[in-house]
Amino acid sequence: MVIPESLNAFLLDTNQIAETTEVFDLVEKTLAYCMKLVQASSGIFFLVDASSKQLVVQSNQGEASGLKLTRKNLDISDSFPGECLENKRVLTTFDFSALDAQNPRHLDMETFVGHSIRNAVSLSLLCQNRPVGVIQLYNYQQLPVDLLEFVAGRMAPELDKLMYLLESRNTIRRLESLIGIMGGIGSTLDPTKILQLIIEDASNLLNVEASSLFLIDKESGDVTLQLSSNKEHTSMEHAVRVPAGKGVIGYVVQTGETVIVNDAKADIRHYTGVDSQVNFNTRSILAVPLKSHPINLGANRGSSLEQIIGGLEAINKRDGLFDAFDIKLMQSFASQAATVFQIAQMYKEANDLFVDALKALTAAIDEKDPYTQGHSQRVSEFSVAIATELGLDAETIHHIRIGSMLHDIGKIWIPDRILKKKGKLTANQYQKMKDHPATGEKIIGAVPMLKEESSAILEHHERLDGSGYPNGLKGDQISLMGRIVAVADAFDAMTSDRQYRQAMSVEEACQRLLSEAGTHFDPMIIQAILKAYQKGYIFTEHERDRS
Amino acid sequence: MVIPESLNAFLLDTNQIAETTEVFDLVEKTLAYCMKLVQASSGIFFLVDASSKQLVVQSNQGEASGLKLTRKNLDISDSFPGECLENKRVLTTFDFSALDAQNPRHLDMETFVGHSIRNAVSLSLLCQNRPVGVIQLYNYQQLPVDLLEFVAGRMAPELDKLMYLLESRNTIRRLESLIGIMGGIGSTLDPTKILQLIIEDASNLLNVEASSLFLIDKESGDVTLQLSSNKEHTSMEHAVRVPAGKGVIGYVVQTGETVIVNDAKADIRHYTGVDSQVNFNTRSILAVPLKSHPINLGANRGSSLEQIIGGLEAINKRDGLFDAFDIKLMQSFASQAATVFQIAQMYKEANDLFVDALKALTAAIDEKDPYTQGHSQRVSEFSVAIATELGLDAETIHHIRIGSMLHDIGKIWIPDRILKKKGKLTANQYQKMKDHPATGEKIIGAVPMLKEESSAILEHHERLDGSGYPNGLKGDQISLMGRIVAVADAFDAMTSDRQYRQAMSVEEACQRLLSEAGTHFDPMIIQAILKAYQKGYIFTEHERDRS
Repeated sequence: MVIPESLNAFLLDTNQIAETTEVFDLVEKTLAYCMKLVQASSGIFFLVDASSKQLVVQSNQGEASGLKLTRKNLDISDSFPGECLENKRVLTTFDFSALDAQNPRHLDMETFVGHSIRNAVSLSLLCQNRPVGVIQLYNYQQLPVDLLEFVAGRMAPELDKLMYLLESRNTIRRLESLIGIMGGIGSTLDPTKILQLIIEDASNLLNVEASSLFLIDKESGDVTLQLSSNKEHTSMEHAVRVPAGKGVIGYVVQTGETVIVNDAKADIRHYTGVDSQVNFNTRSILAVPLKSHPINLGANRGSSLEQIIGGLEAINKRDGLFDAFDIKLMQSFASQAATVFQIAQMYKEANDLFVDALKALTAAIDEKDPYTQGHSQRVSEFSVAIATELGLDAETIHHIRIGSMLHDIGKIWIPDRILKKKGKLTANQYQKMKDHPATGEKIIGAVPMLKEESSAILEHHERLDGSGYPNGLKGDQISLMGRIVAVADAFDAMTSDRQYRQAMSVEEACQRLLSEAGTHFDPMIIQAILKAYQKGYIFTEHERDRS
Repeated sequence: MVIPESLNAFLLDTNQIAETTEVFDLVEKTLAYCMKLVQASSGIFFLVDASSKQLVVQSNQGEASGLKLTRKNLDISDSFPGECLENKRVLTTFDFSALDAQNPRHLDMETFVGHSIRNAVSLSLLCQNRPVGVIQLYNYQQLPVDLLEFVAGRMAPELDKLMYLLESRNTIRRLESLIGIMGGIGSTLDPTKILQLIIEDASNLLNVEASSLFLIDKESGDVTLQLSSNKEHTSMEHAVRVPAGKGVIGYVVQTGETVIVNDAKADIRHYTGVDSQVNFNTRSILAVPLKSHPINLGANRGSSLEQIIGGLEAINKRDGLFDAFDIKLMQSFASQAATVFQIAQMYKEANDLFVDALKALTAAIDEKDPYTQGHSQRVSEFSVAIATELGLDAETIHHIRIGSMLHDIGKIWIPDRILKKKGKLTANQYQKMKDHPATGEKIIGAVPMLKEESSAILEHHERLDGSGYPNGLKGDQISLMGRIVAVADAFDAMTSDRQYRQAMSVEEACQRLLSEAGTHFDPMIIQAILKAYQKGYIFTEHERDRS
């Protein structure tokens, strides 16, 4: 069997058109080729969108090409090309003047293409009996039925594969985006920042108009709107609160199930409370629980439990309806986000526990002597205020906060009779008193992770001119932390009542500091504490009592 | 133009074969169809693997079908089908008896297919001039050249798309696997477990024979092999150490670059030290740095720096060579893994800092009285041993560890003259002494996160019969933690020297505990501490001094 020369050129043409791996390219070239075969005045290539049951114009050429199509999508069930597709015949011809003018499917085709139609031929592209696309050629002049049918059968499997490929590429793009997001969300341990990231990431990942994050109020069981990418939601004076179990989000948080609402108005589960409080029109919702994994806490520790901490809503998908892949992405994301949020909370708790326990213990030590009550805490606040004025970085400030709180820890070992003595100390007793920086450093020396803090303890009685103790360090030999705590300590001592004298006024204390600038204290640090005081960032013991 | 009836059936057949979306299906049916067209005795369909430049047998039918092909892959540059592909003509015929017996490409085809070959026709499937596959038909009886050429041109673009689709599906599968892995690795904060997970996950994700994880030794800058999925690597007595900058891993860790070695023997960067120390043959390596993101530490804190903490090697890819997608997956994974590892380290440090600081402070308080030196720490160890014997869960044990360490914290407020008094206390002084559980609870009351621990402080002097203090609780009114710490505290007090008496022997102390079982102490807890002691898990003060 030999293929005739003329037919061979046709077959080679179609094979060549098929070589592309881009949907748009295949569609454009196929439509052009078909128009040439029939000498049509115009043509449209529709692709089938199975999820929305619509026909989407992918290419329009000839007379129709310059026109802006009135609508780009047609319902399969309610249009002329849809009718051709539904009858499952590859080729259908129409004499438009003979069509039933009463049939709503035929009425608006001329309006749709933007020119008058005498006749039309419609080619259905079916693959394994599934509709993939429709080619419509208007005002044809010849009709090589065999060739047209072959082209439809030739291109349908190619187009089908390209549609799968397009979907796969889209899937890959979204999975890669999820991977980027999952990586990014793990790079902060600030719970508040994580909530913000969750909201932004959910909106981007799902391509929605807004997303909202709800957390469970542990006491009432209600869910409260914590954050929303929709500004009106979160700028409200009162937090939006959804009673336990109410609405889509209440259901999701209670059951741990995922809920899709593609028509919010018609779904009785949609809790309109939020919409009516803010001026927002909810069309569709994808709501998933924020359920954290159980987290293994490490050596000598157990695990945190898997738990639902709240829920996440993606609202109003921009393009089409929420589908199974949206659910999958949103669930993966929400589970990771909830786990990262839990870890951040636990990290914060571990840090807070350390700081709070130190605060309680140093406060207890201060309180042995009623005259030093609250001293360590105030020195810590003053030191942090100074460090902030100096523009130090957050981690350095954190070490200063801890170090200054511990500066007098060595007083644990000073006997009561010296620590609480009403009269003047003997030389010997004073010598014992002066041991407290070194003993404090020794106590803290057992904790290698407090190495940076040790200079606050060891050096807060050193003086710039070398006349301080325990080591008589001079100028820059004293660490910045030591110099800061020295000023904070002196300022609090001067402005508090002591066993042996009344508190100085703030003015007097400032004068005293300034008079010792350069000899005892670092002038730059004195300026910093004065500024912090003037700005109202710190309060002396007496100012606290009054408030 | 009309397509002849006979040809029309042929064209419909080819369109129908093309409708599949599975590579295997398309290949099988196309080969069968071609064999029928030429009446061949056997046929093979090879697919092109562009990365390895090989032809892979995808289907073999007819005489060759029952045979196990000697090799499934042929080099394109060194085989008869490869020769056909390289000449870029769609159809080539061969009279085997006339072929050059000296040409190594022709020599082994009969061995390869397993039967004698008289003649052969080879069809090259080219898409946009790229080779996609080769169909070879052996011992044909007729040769409809037009039809064969059309089939090759008809199927090449279909096959091309299916290969892309296959690759996309593979990409999706691997991205999904990465997402699962990224989620899983975040559910432990145990640094050791995370390292194990990294090794396992890397092997699965990259489909390699082994993977190895190296960490930087901060002091020397060397990288040490921390963990390997290859048992021989890690069961070695001495850790494998690679000098700074040496070998692939040293280079990767130093520069932060990714390195692929697809022929380890030929690559001078391959450091053979590890291979020779263990009996392992490294063929190919993909090595990436373990570089953590900068991590925002939350409110009042700064950020940890981006840093390279080590490197990760995937060794001997099972199937083919490492490619660009392998690099991408491995980098995403390593970056996330390093970040999670850093977070786990920081969480561990925050917890350790808290525990170590408490240890140091309670030890300092104990040390004021030389007779109670180390008391809080020992009571904590005894309490943990009791809780472990009782089979309590890790988190409860953690709270007991902290609570018992703090049990005497109220002694901060007891004046030295009472705490260190050599003689007997007056009734009044004893009353003051008995305040310490309540004052301790008050001190810790400032830290809400230590709520669970408070019963260790408040209840360690209660007795089962209600004769204890401060609240005279009876039996189960006393919390388990309170009952545990009471026994641990008494056992340490009895087995330590005190101001007013020598330490009892362990036997005496045990007798004393048992004699008060049910009245003062919980019998179950006495049994637990005795068992822990017998097993050698705990040591008295005197036993420590001796060791």
